Amino acid sequence: MIVLDGKKTSENIQLELTEEVAQIRQKGGKIPHLAAILVGNDGASETYVASKVKACERIGYGSSLIRLEASVSEAELLKQIDTLNANTDIDGFIVQLPLPKHIDEQKVIERISPEKDVDGFHPVSIGRMVLGLPGFLPATPAGIMELLERYKVETAGKHCVVIGRSHIVGSPMSILLARNAYPGNCTVTLCHSKTKHLKELCLQADIIIAALGKAEFLKADMVKEGAVVVDVGITRVASTETKSGWKLLGDVDYTKVAPKCSFITPVPGGVGPMTIASLLINTLKASKK
Amino acid sequence: MIVLDGKKTSENIQLELTEEVAQIRQKGGKIPHLAAILVGNDGASETYVASKVKACERIGYGSSLIRLEASVSEAELLKQIDTLNANTDIDGFIVQLPLPKHIDEQKVIERISPEKDVDGFHPVSIGRMVLGLPGFLPATPAGIMELLERYKVETAGKHCVVIGRSHIVGSPMSILLARNAYPGNCTVTLCHSKTKHLKELCLQADIIIAALGKAEFLKADMVKEGAVVVDVGITRVASTETKSGWKLLGDVDYTKVAPKCSFITPVPGGVGPMTIASLLINTLKASKK
Repeated sequence: MIVLDGKKTSENIQLELTEEVAQIRQKGGKIPHLAAILVGNDGASETYVASKVKACERIGYGSSLIRLEASVSEAELLKQIDTLNANTDIDGFIVQLPLPKHIDEQKVIERISPEKDVDGFHPVSIGRMVLGLPGFLPATPAGIMELLERYKVETAGKHCVVIGRSHIVGSPMSILLARNAYPGNCTVTLCHSKTKHLKELCLQADIIIAALGKAEFLKADMVKEGAVVVDVGITRVASTETKSGWKLLGDVDYTKVAPKCSFITPVPGGVGPMTIASLLINTLKASKK
Repeated sequence: MIVLDGKKTSENIQLELTEEVAQIRQKGGKIPHLAAILVGNDGASETYVASKVKACERIGYGSSLIRLEASVSEAELLKQIDTLNANTDIDGFIVQLPLPKHIDEQKVIERISPEKDVDGFHPVSIGRMVLGLPGFLPATPAGIMELLERYKVETAGKHCVVIGRSHIVGSPMSILLARNAYPGNCTVTLCHSKTKHLKELCLQADIIIAALGKAEFLKADMVKEGAVVVDVGITRVASTETKSGWKLLGDVDYTKVAPKCSFITPVPGGVGPMTIASLLINTLKASKK
């Protein structure tokens, strides 16, 4: 069994990017610049945005953090987005989700210029992904693809079961793994809350992408010997084992499933760190346009 | 076994649209207007475009046919598209594919304003479909969805196998049937040329969408009793049985498969006529924006 080490892989990618940015700087080229808009003071959002900004600083990108009050109007937020769209120094930017309830998230996502949509959530980015055209892939699916590629996981002709049809992970993963490319060329079964016989389907799978957001949902008796398991879930649960009083669990019952797998991602340290790596890769791509 | 009669259903839809256009006319509203650009003189393309124009005339839509020489430059074609994009009388338009080799089809598709993209091929249309946002669905998948709905075919929790991953049929069908709506909520397996054990997968399917373009590919021993079979293929083969010397075959070995099915689409007269109905529905929708 080989652990798909997202933490280490993300670090490697960041080292490669550091090197590339240094070369760009030496040649007097445009230094990639990522901006993030953070609305309000949600704890998790603060943490995510901070880690993105820190990663930019570490590898030599420019970064900007725009903080807005939770009470900001939708119009004001859209104006901020227009400003970033027009700012040629900023190559890509993200609006950290979720947003306060009085703001229409979809409207906000669609206001971001597709050329700067490094989160890959804009309909144009999603459409280009489906059509196999160059563009920004959503960061988490892109991170999973990168991880599979770097570990040379075979995918062609494999049966992949994706559990969960979210717009940001399950649905794009089902599209990416089915396309005629590497990683890809899988026979893909997309499962969700209405799926019957999920266990039987999982037992047929060579590759399972667990992205439903239920702690330790995927049990050992649902996984066939030698399967590849990618765990996208992160659920915070109370724990007496840790000082903090909580721990992170994935969608996979890791200790029991791992021994059956050819490859598996841990939680934490699997898919999570790859998401940031993808965001940084997307930002570099945006800066080269 | 119930035949999903696309011809009859398309006629019904066109009657409904005729009625609606008559009411719009009475109220002095905007009459829907569809334009088509036809490049060159390909026989099949001529036939398709002519039938679209004729359908418009029959139901009371405005229609325009713009014919361009096969030698037209890409720049000239793009200029024509810009003209149609800007023409407020024209609600929607299509560029009949395929285009001559010297023209970049993708560039042409992306030049069409998403607001007038009644074929639903633009990345914005595809992205909005994936995200479940309002927009134009690609005409053939939309036609299949309409047919399933009008015959009240149950889909929730069913296992659907889609054979073929084309951008215009297989891939969008896999997305539409998996989404949380009716028709939809299927567990969807997307199969293609790299799929192994296709027969075993098909035998698990409650619903099969055959969209690979190989005449009579799906045999009776690949279909379980009571399955719903939708045949998207149209292959023209030589025939001594017809006056014309050829006949149209679907991707399904109809005479042997049909007796096992709960529902099945014939070829011709199944999915084909529904594509035109969808185009007309999309055009009405465009005119109401």
